[in-house]
Amino acid sequence: MNDKTVSVVGLGDMGTALADALLAAGHRVTVWNRTAARAEPLVARGASRAETAADAIVASQLVVICLLDYDSVSQVLVPHTDVLAGRTLVNLTNGTPGQAREMAAWAADHGADYLDGGIMAVPPMIATPEAFVLYSGPSGTFETWQPVLDAFGESRYLGDDAGAAALQDLALLAGMYGVIAGSLHALALVRSTGGSTREFAPLLSKWLQGVVTWPLAAAEQIDAGDYGEDVVSNLGMQTAGFANHFIAAEEQGISAELLLPVYQLMQRRVADGRGHEDIVGVIELLKR
Amino acid sequence: MNDKTVSVVGLGDMGTALADALLAAGHRVTVWNRTAARAEPLVARGASRAETAADAIVASQLVVICLLDYDSVSQVLVPHTDVLAGRTLVNLTNGTPGQAREMAAWAADHGADYLDGGIMAVPPMIATPEAFVLYSGPSGTFETWQPVLDAFGESRYLGDDAGAAALQDLALLAGMYGVIAGSLHALALVRSTGGSTREFAPLLSKWLQGVVTWPLAAAEQIDAGDYGEDVVSNLGMQTAGFANHFIAAEEQGISAELLLPVYQLMQRRVADGRGHEDIVGVIELLKR
Ligand SMILES: NC(=O)c1ccc[n+]([C@@H]2O[C@H](COP(=O)([O-])OP(=O)(O)OC[C@H]3O[C@@H](n4cnc5c(N)ncnc54)[C@H](OP(=O)(O)O)[C@@H]3O)[C@@H](O)[C@H]2O)c1
Ligand SMILES: NC(=O)c1ccc[n+]([C@@H]2O[C@H](COP(=O)([O-])OP(=O)(O)OC[C@H]3O[C@@H](n4cnc5c(N)ncnc54)[C@H](OP(=O)(O)O)[C@@H]3O)[C@@H](O)[C@H]2O)c1
Repeated sequence: MNDKTVSVVGLGDMGTALADALLAAGHRVTVWNRTAARAEPLVARGASRAETAADAIVASQLVVICLLDYDSVSQVLVPHTDVLAGRTLVNLTNGTPGQAREMAAWAADHGADYLDGGIMAVPPMIATPEAFVLYSGPSGTFETWQPVLDAFGESRYLGDDAGAAALQDLALLAGMYGVIAGSLHALALVRSTGGSTREFAPLLSKWLQGVVTWPLAAAEQIDAGDYGEDVVSNLGMQTAGFANHFIAAEEQGISAELLLPVYQLMQRRVADGRGHEDIVGVIELLKR
Repeated sequence: MNDKTVSVVGLGDMGTALADALLAAGHRVTVWNRTAARAEPLVARGASRAETAADAIVASQLVVICLLDYDSVSQVLVPHTDVLAGRTLVNLTNGTPGQAREMAAWAADHGADYLDGGIMAVPPMIATPEAFVLYSGPSGTFETWQPVLDAFGESRYLGDDAGAAALQDLALLAGMYGVIAGSLHALALVRSTGGSTREFAPLLSKWLQGVVTWPLAAAEQIDAGDYGEDVVSNLGMQTAGFANHFIAAEEQGISAELLLPVYQLMQRRVADGRGHEDIVGVIELLKR
């Protein structure tokens, strides 16, 4: 064991990018993956291959985990509880706040320090200034390992609730899937004319560039709980216009299913007498 | 009649902004609105009020129309077909490609030139460099009036098919509603922790800033019809992770309905054996 050695458990597209970033930062890196062949390119680039997950855990004080989901993390770690004491597990697998808190408690039970993280980047962005990673867990643990973790991108510490990183990760991903869903509908509509989507995409991207400030103004209204001030695009007008998405989709032979739930919420809010307010008030219908 | 006079029919938030932009550009402006009181602030700023829609049409060669929807446009124009000949109608009301083509044909039947348009801005953005307006219809008509129309923002001419502006308008709005839907979910999730959404919103906005280039890479794949090259975030992994949105929403007591349709499409695509491909391939499921 050597505190300059870092282990990476899970060598999918993301785990491979993380291991490469650690190698590039000058660390000795030990890697393990269920399907052993996926370790080979990293070994060729200087990583050491652990034969078993237990070997990977034993090899380093810092163990970075990046698997498909928390079930796979449990499947990999549970058989090796005996080697966890004294290690720091940094779990960068996508999960929920509840899963993260449960895993943190489980790690503590076995004497391991635990940080949960959410990677806000695709693999090619790792180790570039565009990448950032959310972390939550004990601040001391974060401070100890931040110099190593900074190899992945900007490290953003969100506090000691282990679930905080997963929560903000999912929130940011929801925003991303909104862009993807809306853009897929947009591109399908343009494709339905026989036109090139490549010609249209720059305009869509430029337009969305202006739209992404929307959460800033929305958050002001949400925190104030007031959706009726200075409205310039009233919900009634937007809901009337929204019907055109479904008529146009029918005209063009595409499905508008991606747009349906936001429209239904807008209609409910109008039916509640909020047609003169801002669309942001729709958030009140997302409470259970 | 004077070709320096422009009429604006419809003085909602947007029609008012358009009339103000024309005044600011030095035009004489005649305005009409169903609810007459809404004309008063514009009259105070120098506009002339027409008593009837017919008077507004007669007052100018260029008539800009901005009403709630095409039904309201028909309700306003149909009684006045006798005064349309020789006018140019620029209809900036939100509609579908089919509605725009139908209105263009109807206008031609009554001897009016017709341009259809889509305003890509909220009213406070009108006459700023951020605003742009899509136009379609006869190129000669567009060229004649562009110097006046440029008062609203950048004029983008999309060709002689009257439906083209409506189609791209709806496509861009679909992208916007994607951002809104995804952001509403994100902000609801953050609010569910008791946290300030105002503190989180800048991170969401910054993150989305990086995401809005997504259509550019997506369009390359769509035009090529190939979703299997250089995949760094495979659909199977994304679909597995997507389940966490629903678990987390349940944990936090919010509804995840805004995210459901894109998830269902992802699941269908994985079931079709496309889990190793890019999420962009989901577009194939939007064909009817
Ligand atoms: N790729 C991205 O854009 C991206 C971005 C941000 C976050 N993430 C997160 O990073 C994590 C990994 O993503 P990825 O892109 O690397 O996915 P991936 O390429 O599909 O790789 C999945 C990894 O999980 C392993 N795995 C799955 N089930 C397992 C099990 N039961 N036991 C042991 N190992 C198992 C796989 O091992 P085998 O090779 O043996 O199958 C592989 O190493 C996910 O939580 C993802 O949400 C990814
Ligand atoms: N606001 C925006 O952010 C925005 C952005 C881009 C495009 N647009 C488009 O611009 C158009 C107008 O939007 P807006 O924001 O100005 O809406 P608004 O403030 O709600 O105003 C609606 C206008 O339509 C008129 N109207 C409705 N039904 C009518 C009828 N049956 N007969 C005559 N007039 C009728 C209203 O007259 P009364 O005053 O008599 O009710 C009012 O002038 C819509 O197509 C919208 O999609 C708006």
